[in-house]
Amino acid sequence: MTPDFHARESDCIIAETLRARFAPGAPGVLYFDASSIGPMPADAPSRMQEVLDAGWRVARRRAWNETDWLAQPKKLGAAIAGVLGAGVDDVVVGDATTVNQFKLLHHALTVRAPRRVMVVEADVFPSNRYAAEGVAHAGHAGVRLIAGIHELPAALAAGDVAVVALSHVDYRSSTRLPMAEITAQVHDAGACVLWDLSHSAGALGIDLSGADVDFAVGCGYKYLCGGPGAPGFVYVHPRWQEGAWPAICGWMGHADTFAFEPAFRPAPGVARHLAATPAVLANTAFGAAAEVWKTVDPAWLDARHRALSESLIARIERECAGLGLELASPREHARRGGHVAYRFDGAGALAQALVEAGVVVSARKPDALRFAAHPLTATEAELGEAVARLRDILAGGRWREPRFAGPAV
Amino acid sequence: MTPDFHARESDCIIAETLRARFAPGAPGVLYFDASSIGPMPADAPSRMQEVLDAGWRVARRRAWNETDWLAQPKKLGAAIAGVLGAGVDDVVVGDATTVNQFKLLHHALTVRAPRRVMVVEADVFPSNRYAAEGVAHAGHAGVRLIAGIHELPAALAAGDVAVVALSHVDYRSSTRLPMAEITAQVHDAGACVLWDLSHSAGALGIDLSGADVDFAVGCGYKYLCGGPGAPGFVYVHPRWQEGAWPAICGWMGHADTFAFEPAFRPAPGVARHLAATPAVLANTAFGAAAEVWKTVDPAWLDARHRALSESLIARIERECAGLGLELASPREHARRGGHVAYRFDGAGALAQALVEAGVVVSARKPDALRFAAHPLTATEAELGEAVARLRDILAGGRWREPRFAGPAV
Repeated sequence: MTPDFHARESDCIIAETLRARFAPGAPGVLYFDASSIGPMPADAPSRMQEVLDAGWRVARRRAWNETDWLAQPKKLGAAIAGVLGAGVDDVVVGDATTVNQFKLLHHALTVRAPRRVMVVEADVFPSNRYAAEGVAHAGHAGVRLIAGIHELPAALAAGDVAVVALSHVDYRSSTRLPMAEITAQVHDAGACVLWDLSHSAGALGIDLSGADVDFAVGCGYKYLCGGPGAPGFVYVHPRWQEGAWPAICGWMGHADTFAFEPAFRPAPGVARHLAATPAVLANTAFGAAAEVWKTVDPAWLDARHRALSESLIARIERECAGLGLELASPREHARRGGHVAYRFDGAGALAQALVEAGVVVSARKPDALRFAAHPLTATEAELGEAVARLRDILAGGRWREPRFAGPAV
Repeated sequence: MTPDFHARESDCIIAETLRARFAPGAPGVLYFDASSIGPMPADAPSRMQEVLDAGWRVARRRAWNETDWLAQPKKLGAAIAGVLGAGVDDVVVGDATTVNQFKLLHHALTVRAPRRVMVVEADVFPSNRYAAEGVAHAGHAGVRLIAGIHELPAALAAGDVAVVALSHVDYRSSTRLPMAEITAQVHDAGACVLWDLSHSAGALGIDLSGADVDFAVGCGYKYLCGGPGAPGFVYVHPRWQEGAWPAICGWMGHADTFAFEPAFRPAPGVARHLAATPAVLANTAFGAAAEVWKTVDPAWLDARHRALSESLIARIERECAGLGLELASPREHARRGGHVAYRFDGAGALAQALVEAGVVVSARKPDALRFAAHPLTATEAELGEAVARLRDILAGGRWREPRFAGPAV
């Protein structure tokens, strides 16, 4: 990334073209909440109406035969594979991230048997830890908690680790872990790695193939813009795809779904993890975003996101100095994820005050304020305006007003 | 059910009122495919547009706090509890049927440990068998296949059965199993029962509480009209709800989701099975149907469905005699499920010809033709017209035309 990224005319044109594919939000409102829900593609409503009307109302069950409803999980996976640095056949979309986390923990434990230990960061996003605890509780494996990545060498030393499950980007601080380096370290210890890309997919340049990653999951509704509660995705490296039955066996993961064979036979490749009937309406919304992702150059995306995030940090540094915000994210781009986090004593109240002022951000306990610019829609002008409003709220002490003193949002 | 059901003015008014809450399909087309996808509530599109626009586009992440998105799984469960004969707190909506089947097999195995056997019908809907095979494959239990319910006593004799997983209604023949009787038989053997209600929920009177059922799952997109690929539901009897961790542990099944506690602590009751972020768009469509279900008297539903199904059988008997259709479903209402099935050598081609003639039915290999009238929308007039078209196609031999000779639909 160069400081004059925006001075390159071609980049401006790409940014404007991509931004135009999304619906603008409410007038005057600035959205920096892509770490919670990404923006809506402009044609998501018309696509949904079409499926509701021509599909559900008119075609009814014929649509299962006459449309791509059943093919959506693979098509969506192929469409987002590019921004994940994955092969088009190595990703499928379906089910929620925690369910997918569960599936791939099982997959990793199977291919690395008789190793039975799952290494998990103690303060990872709670649902990831819960998924692993659930697997352990059922008696299949054990969880080894680490306080941070610095404890990884010790955790791997006994040679009993099947899988190390890590978040690529921390949901509070936005600290990004070095994917390729850690993956190699885990491989050297004979284990597999499972990356959760929820806070990086669709924001950062990711190279799953290049980093030789074994397994990955991620959220569909954050930077990937799949819609509220969109299904997540599953990535399995080709070397492991045939190595295990799916944890949840179902007809859509069968080698020949409509043969209705009595016995289970896993589908080739990653598709075996598609247990059940696709969530057609959710996939329809995601499909609108998938059409955009197909056109996005991952290197461009990464550079654009970097430019926006660095600009945000520089602006806050310049305009909000001495007003109590402390950068909680790494300053170095390569070590930072999708959002930029600040420590602030009263982050919840400040987030509420910002929302009231038309700057939609989010907070996480105890003291993290998160600004998440979406690289396909955010602009420098929006950044400037958001930081101006932030400065005014901080300088005027408005966030201290009692009405903002609710729980963190 | 009395033959003069439709002569009762109050029943006609109820039927017309409920029918008016659904969108009509294509003009002239008659829909008897409720066993694949139920009809669309008339306000599903406007509800969806509202969530897309006011929720996703405008509110973005604020909608998680300001709307009922997170409460939907419980609200939808409570809304359909009535037609399932379940307590309002004993049902939640989320994930797909096969995933839910997986969850409840685990739940049953846990509460009945050290028993480790799952009894499954060999020719049940394949995905249900696959789910059990997957659990067995992972080493937690064994599958004992039975050729039919007559083999149940022998299968239970050894005293090692944890759970008997049965379909309430067979997806081909529509044979309905006697729920209360079998449940009692299974309990006498010290096991639990898990009923799949996919082909009965929303069509028949069901009394989960009265039958003392332990566990149940079912499809959201068939008779329940939740929309294509809608999430399914989970029912757990109160006596078992606290007895096991969920198979898939996640933040939405935690006792205090937003406390972000590091360790998993299951939510009280059936909600522990809600692992992950709700599928908001899918739930929005389901919500339109849920509003209707809240108003439906289960006894009325059962009587209406019975009247329509018996009328269909009588009409086909009268008008299509000698034309090759053989009733494959039980004639007795109490032994029949949501659809009426006929054996026909060439069922796939006949189904195609019917579709072309504007009668949307479905077929299942090898020779089942399925008519599934939805009790909230089908009318006697539609039945009459559908049977007239069926008779014409059969009498004229039109279904034999080469263009209908595709795979069964």
